[in-house]
Amino acid sequence: MATKPTTDILSGFGRIPVTGISPVIEGGAYPAKAVVGELIPIRATIFREGHDAVNASVVLVNPKGREKLVPMQALEPKGLDPWEAWVRLDAPGLWRFRIEGWSDPWHTWLHNADAKLHAGIDTELVAAEFQALLDRVAPRVKNKRDLAFCEKFAAAFTAEAGPEALLKLAFDPKLAALMEKYGPRDLVSPTAEYPIFVDRERALCGSWYELFPRSVGAKQVKGKWISGTFDDCHTRLEEIAAMGFDVVYLPPIHPIGRSYRKGRNNTLDPTANDPGSPWAIGNADGGHDAINPELGDFAAFDRFVAKAESVGLEVALDLALQCSPDHPWVTAHPEWFSKRIDGSIAYAENPPKKYQDIYPLNFDNDPEGIYAEIWRIIELWISHGVKIFRVDNPHTKPLPFWARLHAELREKHPEVITLAEAFTKPAMMHSLGKLGFSQSYTYFTWRTAKWELEQYLGELSHLMDSFYRPNFFVNTPDINPFFLQSGNPAAFAIRAVLAATMSPSWGVYSGFELYEHEPLAPGREEYLNSEKYEFRPRDFTAEPNLSLLIGSLNDIRHKHPALQQLRQFNFHGVENERIIAYSKRDGDDVMLMVVSLNPDATEEGWVHLNMPDLGLDWGARFAVEDRLTGSYFHWDQDNFVRLPPENPAHILRVWR
Amino acid sequence: MATKPTTDILSGFGRIPVTGISPVIEGGAYPAKAVVGELIPIRATIFREGHDAVNASVVLVNPKGREKLVPMQALEPKGLDPWEAWVRLDAPGLWRFRIEGWSDPWHTWLHNADAKLHAGIDTELVAAEFQALLDRVAPRVKNKRDLAFCEKFAAAFTAEAGPEALLKLAFDPKLAALMEKYGPRDLVSPTAEYPIFVDRERALCGSWYELFPRSVGAKQVKGKWISGTFDDCHTRLEEIAAMGFDVVYLPPIHPIGRSYRKGRNNTLDPTANDPGSPWAIGNADGGHDAINPELGDFAAFDRFVAKAESVGLEVALDLALQCSPDHPWVTAHPEWFSKRIDGSIAYAENPPKKYQDIYPLNFDNDPEGIYAEIWRIIELWISHGVKIFRVDNPHTKPLPFWARLHAELREKHPEVITLAEAFTKPAMMHSLGKLGFSQSYTYFTWRTAKWELEQYLGELSHLMDSFYRPNFFVNTPDINPFFLQSGNPAAFAIRAVLAATMSPSWGVYSGFELYEHEPLAPGREEYLNSEKYEFRPRDFTAEPNLSLLIGSLNDIRHKHPALQQLRQFNFHGVENERIIAYSKRDGDDVMLMVVSLNPDATEEGWVHLNMPDLGLDWGARFAVEDRLTGSYFHWDQDNFVRLPPENPAHILRVWR
Repeated sequence: MATKPTTDILSGFGRIPVTGISPVIEGGAYPAKAVVGELIPIRATIFREGHDAVNASVVLVNPKGREKLVPMQALEPKGLDPWEAWVRLDAPGLWRFRIEGWSDPWHTWLHNADAKLHAGIDTELVAAEFQALLDRVAPRVKNKRDLAFCEKFAAAFTAEAGPEALLKLAFDPKLAALMEKYGPRDLVSPTAEYPIFVDRERALCGSWYELFPRSVGAKQVKGKWISGTFDDCHTRLEEIAAMGFDVVYLPPIHPIGRSYRKGRNNTLDPTANDPGSPWAIGNADGGHDAINPELGDFAAFDRFVAKAESVGLEVALDLALQCSPDHPWVTAHPEWFSKRIDGSIAYAENPPKKYQDIYPLNFDNDPEGIYAEIWRIIELWISHGVKIFRVDNPHTKPLPFWARLHAELREKHPEVITLAEAFTKPAMMHSLGKLGFSQSYTYFTWRTAKWELEQYLGELSHLMDSFYRPNFFVNTPDINPFFLQSGNPAAFAIRAVLAATMSPSWGVYSGFELYEHEPLAPGREEYLNSEKYEFRPRDFTAEPNLSLLIGSLNDIRHKHPALQQLRQFNFHGVENERIIAYSKRDGDDVMLMVVSLNPDATEEGWVHLNMPDLGLDWGARFAVEDRLTGSYFHWDQDNFVRLPPENPAHILRVWR
Repeated sequence: MATKPTTDILSGFGRIPVTGISPVIEGGAYPAKAVVGELIPIRATIFREGHDAVNASVVLVNPKGREKLVPMQALEPKGLDPWEAWVRLDAPGLWRFRIEGWSDPWHTWLHNADAKLHAGIDTELVAAEFQALLDRVAPRVKNKRDLAFCEKFAAAFTAEAGPEALLKLAFDPKLAALMEKYGPRDLVSPTAEYPIFVDRERALCGSWYELFPRSVGAKQVKGKWISGTFDDCHTRLEEIAAMGFDVVYLPPIHPIGRSYRKGRNNTLDPTANDPGSPWAIGNADGGHDAINPELGDFAAFDRFVAKAESVGLEVALDLALQCSPDHPWVTAHPEWFSKRIDGSIAYAENPPKKYQDIYPLNFDNDPEGIYAEIWRIIELWISHGVKIFRVDNPHTKPLPFWARLHAELREKHPEVITLAEAFTKPAMMHSLGKLGFSQSYTYFTWRTAKWELEQYLGELSHLMDSFYRPNFFVNTPDINPFFLQSGNPAAFAIRAVLAATMSPSWGVYSGFELYEHEPLAPGREEYLNSEKYEFRPRDFTAEPNLSLLIGSLNDIRHKHPALQQLRQFNFHGVENERIIAYSKRDGDDVMLMVVSLNPDATEEGWVHLNMPDLGLDWGARFAVEDRLTGSYFHWDQDNFVRLPPENPAHILRVWR
């Protein structure tokens, strides 16, 4: 089920050793991650025996098998032999790369010539060796201009010219360019080939909005709730699109179980009026392949998808692989569940807690049968225009199941994107990313202090970037973050700015823009009157309202490639532990964010920029444009900032 | 040429994921290192989906294919899912190991039973599940006593006993022991198998003494030097053995080139009296398969080896794969060398420096021919009793050559030990260890400050231990360390103590015990009147003399297994940057070293012991015995030490 390299990676060191290669995921078992056009680093430790010059290239193999050679650069510190090439993969699909270490006669000669000509020794030998090198180069030269250079250098580079003139010739940039292009590569030592799967851009970058369709237009009539429908959502889709979102994500839309249905606030005694949790999937109306009739039918769903598309939104569905006791599978396939010792089907437990409304699948009982059914369901929704799945609790299902599913998706539906909703220990979260989830929820909601954010973003952008794409949700139906429970609008603004500018994907769950913040109880991170268990129609025109800021953030994100990527991310020093400064960069686009982490008071302090990270020289003066306010400033490497709660962030475009 | 795992490591995550496995060298291409009886750690990150208990075992496969299951332990921090088992491999040869992650019904049940019985719920179910578990265990129980336990627990564990009594039964240590032995392992998920080559102990641990046999008994007769011989060395071998050394290492013993022979102090104008550098190998008398007639013939060499053996010394030969211009290969196999553009054979160069007395081999010209000849030479010396080769400059030869050589040595002469003399960048030094060199020279001579030693020993014992075995030479014919150039005897004592107690292998080059220290010139780390270029007969009875201390150190090393191993090494805090404290441990043997790094003045300060590293409780009082002086002290976690230059170290046995 895993992708295998085409060559044997167990052969050890090649003639020119290349080791510590990245990105390589679990020895090459799974492809590393990239999206079309994303700049990604390929790295290795490359060295050789003796004194001759070593060099290296990356060979990129595109999905059609065409190869492209990219030169690698030796980095500092030289003593550790690090090499690197940043590449952009320009087509979706399964790419491969290998690294070729090679012996470099041109640089060997240049190094020796430099030493010998400076010492005034062996001039004839140096010249003769140069001519021999040119003899190897000339046949490979294709165009006349380069051939003319070759001939010019051949004529000029004779011992009679004397060491001083030869030194000058040897370091002629035109000669360097010629050799870069045609210089011989000896002892070429290819590594194994490792896979990189190139997704469409949305796998890395997007703004997500989560809504419960049943709440949109829901109303009470004579004390009885009437559910909102897909058709009721069309106007709301327009509003979401107007805020600049790219993805609208729906919790499960399937029929909801009746047995042990949960009432308001997760209580055990529901009224007939309570709609139940959408994650308790399945009743007599059907299971994962059906739609809750209260929301509409497949035609209504198709209209919803079409409307979303028409305003530039993709629809993400929830894939929650669990059942209510009323799910059709329970009778059709009792073997897909665990049995208790008394013969009854086991409900979910976290002893002593019992979740009698949920029957977990037991993937070990009939792996093939369960896989086939889930594949059928995924293809059903794909056939209705769904290309994004948010996967509920993947960390409670076996990893080989997910690996197989993603391998088949990559092959048959490479456009499909999956978001792993795993809030658990790092090894599991990393592994889900490695085996194929396109992107993942994160610890962002619990990272609020500067040191926490710096440490976590450092990991995400520099250590985990090849296998884990973050999606920074500011809240979810399950998480009402402590940081927001004051209801202070500045707190909401701060978290929105951080999420939208730190991570290429970010998400908002409905109600965030209205500053909803009441917890189920003090010390609890859940919402009071959670929409998971009841209808929550909202007035999105209410004030105060964060929609404008959210719209600005999404607009800035769309206009700045720097904010759409993950890997070129750096922090800058601020003499204030409650102000964080960071920059992102893609080519010429350089964005610098300075954000207060204190929603309750004005923070100020000196920002000390690490100028090379901005592509600037130390001591340079440059213009910055605050993309939130339109103001321009002249900055240099040290700048004083003042961030009051009502305007807690600068999002600066750096003009170079 | 590399060793291949028997199963496919590219298959990705198993049902119970096991990742980040160590020791795995270059994806399994080369075996990890161990010696017979050495305690080595096997580690991995192991986790699983959902709530059920995970467990893991190491399966050791001995050279005969017999398997042994070793339980692994979960370590802290639990959040990172680290697992570990320390194992001893009790026979030499090629072992393999795999890790099996598995689902643990016993601990799953215990966790649930604990929660439920405490809450007083599901007592019947808990009891019934226990009986079902016992039904799986009973058929596997072989002895009557365990079977009786089984039956006793089966009879006692009924719902009627009530939750409180059942809780007590559930946590009965006898039940835990029974389950540890027979508990079922579900969903067993084996990883690939990875190789570990188990060498004889000398590969890890030994005291080396380097001598030039030509100097022993060399004398001037009428102004003309007469070389010492192998036969002259017999008494010296006894003295070296008396100092407790295990290995006597000889620089090349082959005929020495005449062309461009170097004179005293590496000068270019030798007299007829100058013996030349032994590393300029080969003349009309022969090459690498011959003996310099001035030292004796093969019979004399055999007598030398026999004498060494008789006093408990092994002989290590130098393997220096380079030639003088007079080497027989130069005429017999000119194709084994590089040709300059003028057709002449290329001498060694580091432009603008020229080494015209040395012709390097070009391994790329005829890899098969050169390999066969070098294999022939190695087997020749093996047939004369040599089992240890100190390899000169391996980093100037291609790595695949060394990998092939070591693979064949492991197969045909597993008793052979190689020492890599590579002083170069870390990637090359690491790689030589990975591909098979038994042990390696190190940066020790240049690590003299406390922070440098702590950082380096941390790397060696905890990060590089599975592929790189250090040999701490205090000096070599090429390295006259700056730290020793004062000639201060305390400096020599400090370095000897550090080398002998930090590293399981250490080495001394002749003259160290006489405090030889004069540099070639100020600022140079070479010896004046280097023995590489002249005869240096010595009076080893001269005073002052470090032989006694060296003898004590080797004696202590022989008596203490803790000092013979590398991996269980820890530093302790000292409130003085010029005192270093560290401990080593093997089973019950615990050694604690406190060493002044200042040869010029008395140092004193508080030593704060990390008690668990010594196997002691915080606050414990315990006896220590200084193995250098025989004194006993009572210590606890904080102790004051005073180390004058005449007695700069404590080597303490910790009595627990």
